[in-house]
Amino acid sequence: MCISDCCYWGCGLLQKDFVEEDGLTRVDGGKAIVPSVIKAVEVARELGIFVVWVVREHDPLGRDVELFRRHLYGPGKIGPISEGSVGAELVDGLVIKEGDYKLVKTRFSAFFATHLHSFLQSNGINSVVIVGVQTPNCIRQTVFDAVALDYQSVTVLVDATAAATPDIHFANIRDMKNVGVATPTLQEWCESNA
Amino acid sequence: MCISDCCYWGCGLLQKDFVEEDGLTRVDGGKAIVPSVIKAVEVARELGIFVVWVVREHDPLGRDVELFRRHLYGPGKIGPISEGSVGAELVDGLVIKEGDYKLVKTRFSAFFATHLHSFLQSNGINSVVIVGVQTPNCIRQTVFDAVALDYQSVTVLVDATAAATPDIHFANIRDMKNVGVATPTLQEWCESNA
Repeated sequence: MCISDCCYWGCGLLQKDFVEEDGLTRVDGGKAIVPSVIKAVEVARELGIFVVWVVREHDPLGRDVELFRRHLYGPGKIGPISEGSVGAELVDGLVIKEGDYKLVKTRFSAFFATHLHSFLQSNGINSVVIVGVQTPNCIRQTVFDAVALDYQSVTVLVDATAAATPDIHFANIRDMKNVGVATPTLQEWCESNA
Repeated sequence: MCISDCCYWGCGLLQKDFVEEDGLTRVDGGKAIVPSVIKAVEVARELGIFVVWVVREHDPLGRDVELFRRHLYGPGKIGPISEGSVGAELVDGLVIKEGDYKLVKTRFSAFFATHLHSFLQSNGINSVVIVGVQTPNCIRQTVFDAVALDYQSVTVLVDATAAATPDIHFANIRDMKNVGVATPTLQEWCESNA
């Protein structure tokens, strides 16, 4: 893999509402991968790979949320990942540094109604490596869009992504493999880029 | 469900290359659901529901195919679902009738780089019911895009859709249920619209 062509990024990322015990939309399995994601980002930076942090930040009134969970928002309620809430913050240990890029999305796919594709294209990036939560939604939707958009290389780090259960995680990993996606472990990926 | 608001359609549909024994990109499980799809389309027409046939038809040279399978196309080769090939035809028993609408796509999601969303919106359609093959790819990508696009109601008929194995099929049905998608059987759906 040509490093200079790479984009290395997290998707549906490790915000407190997704990960912490009291998170409003907690994904079991999320907490366990935090160390792997921290390590993955460190490795990416050492290799000079561009890091894009994709996060959700929703209108506190829920007007930009998917219809099926819009009932969680409204006056007097604090819905998941509301902009400015503690739940919308990155989990401890993950820090956006100078030179990284933060992108806010409102749907599962990081490409859906965002400028991500034109942004990556205009910076000459045609490969993506994806980490974060959760596998069947944000991870997979972003991955399938990257495949549809003809990214040369689409990689999901299998042990730096997670779902509610290992069963859900690996069922989705299998489907992604079937459309040409690479799914190495972090260590395998590091070795292939050593 | 308000019938007049409905769109009833097939996605990644039952073309011969996906279904027949000698199909170039055969999905095990596809053939078995053909009778259910025929029945579903009949019921839709009886109820006055708009039928949209979503099909793939690829450039024989493969220039509009996803990168991961572009090697299947080229001079001297007949790649899957090539425009004008026998494999691109609908399977026997499925017929596009006057009043139906045919839409050609080149990626898994029927919404990806097509006019489907604007077409449905401009015709006042805000509910979709999906049948066809195959569950982890065309069905699921279209479904997740419909959710992201805020369709009021997104339904997958669980026994009029199929994948390579029941395991893959039901793993994907579970994930879709988790984002608010209805997954009745054809009979359950008919009864709810009787």
